[in-house]
Amino acid sequence: MPRQADHDQRRRQIAEAVWRLAGRGGLEDVTLRQVAAEAGVSVRLVQYYFGSRDGLLLTALEILDADAEQRAHARVTALGADAGPRAILRNILLELLPLDRERRTRHLVHAAYFLRFLRDPALAREARDAPLALEELVAALIGRGRPADPVSPAVDTRSEAAFLLAGAHGLRAGVLLGQRSAEQAVALLDLQLDRVFGTAGSRSVVPAESRDG
Amino acid sequence: MPRQADHDQRRRQIAEAVWRLAGRGGLEDVTLRQVAAEAGVSVRLVQYYFGSRDGLLLTALEILDADAEQRAHARVTALGADAGPRAILRNILLELLPLDRERRTRHLVHAAYFLRFLRDPALAREARDAPLALEELVAALIGRGRPADPVSPAVDTRSEAAFLLAGAHGLRAGVLLGQRSAEQAVALLDLQLDRVFGTAGSRSVVPAESRDG
Repeated sequence: MPRQADHDQRRRQIAEAVWRLAGRGGLEDVTLRQVAAEAGVSVRLVQYYFGSRDGLLLTALEILDADAEQRAHARVTALGADAGPRAILRNILLELLPLDRERRTRHLVHAAYFLRFLRDPALAREARDAPLALEELVAALIGRGRPADPVSPAVDTRSEAAFLLAGAHGLRAGVLLGQRSAEQAVALLDLQLDRVFGTAGSRSVVPAESRDG
Repeated sequence: MPRQADHDQRRRQIAEAVWRLAGRGGLEDVTLRQVAAEAGVSVRLVQYYFGSRDGLLLTALEILDADAEQRAHARVTALGADAGPRAILRNILLELLPLDRERRTRHLVHAAYFLRFLRDPALAREARDAPLALEELVAALIGRGRPADPVSPAVDTRSEAAFLLAGAHGLRAGVLLGQRSAEQAVALLDLQLDRVFGTAGSRSVVPAESRDG
């Protein structure tokens, strides 16, 4: 009998309840009682699978991040083996924007956890180390994708990588808050990619208003 | 007798308790009971001044933001009447980084409120409109500060303004999470300002590691 599969499915069902509650109202709504009600199970079952509230918060985040990594990987793979550094980098940056329900949920949950990242040592390490590894990857992609042309201005790849990622993070918050559409955020990222990869001249530069209209 | 001053001081004392609790543990720690204990007053007094928890959350944020605006304004004024567009813009971006205790507190409190911005219409408006006004100001500063030299590459000022602000927001999160120091974040912003204002050639471009070391 698929015993382990049943367990996994039950854990996921409860984790998804955590994501919904956290993404709607923040962690203050994520109590064992509320999660049980949202998942349609008993409090005892939540405790059986996750122990304390701390255990529930940590595991629900781990399941979310594992999911996200898998989907991000699938999207990069779908680009095909011929995808150049720019296409791969663009894909990485788009993972940071709330372009669909799954990414929107993920970003809302991360926003809900933000204060907790700062005081829980295990979460803090997770929130600190993964982005630095990503920054190195992005820097390498910029380095590979730049034209060899010695006339094009030098680019400090690590600094540009850091600022591109920071910009994508900032745009994400703006989209979630309704300051701009996801499409406008993508257009702003594309403009920076044009510049970083030295292809700025290939697009006309027009005011954001008319470009987005 | 300074009756109004007493009231204002008492309200501020309670608002500061909200900031400390929110900045430490997120909004889940901001209950009327915990705020009263943190401020060293009775729950009845908190209710007398702020009514419900919703009223407390909103007013505490308003006091924080009014403070921040006053200090930001004082810092721009301190630059002197001769300050050019770049110096003013740099100052605006530095307001977004947790460069001192006051700015760190402000950013942590805003992070704690993030999910609430999304579902409370009054807060949502505040979180959406102010940044767009700032973006216009930043675009105007870029336009004023660019060299008239027709040879320098065209810059879409509104798009660059949006991305600079998004980048500063993203860097702020990175500094709070311990991914990089505030000094490194400032250096990354300066590099982008060099570029946007067309002064990139005046600095040597070196890897971030050696520049920050």
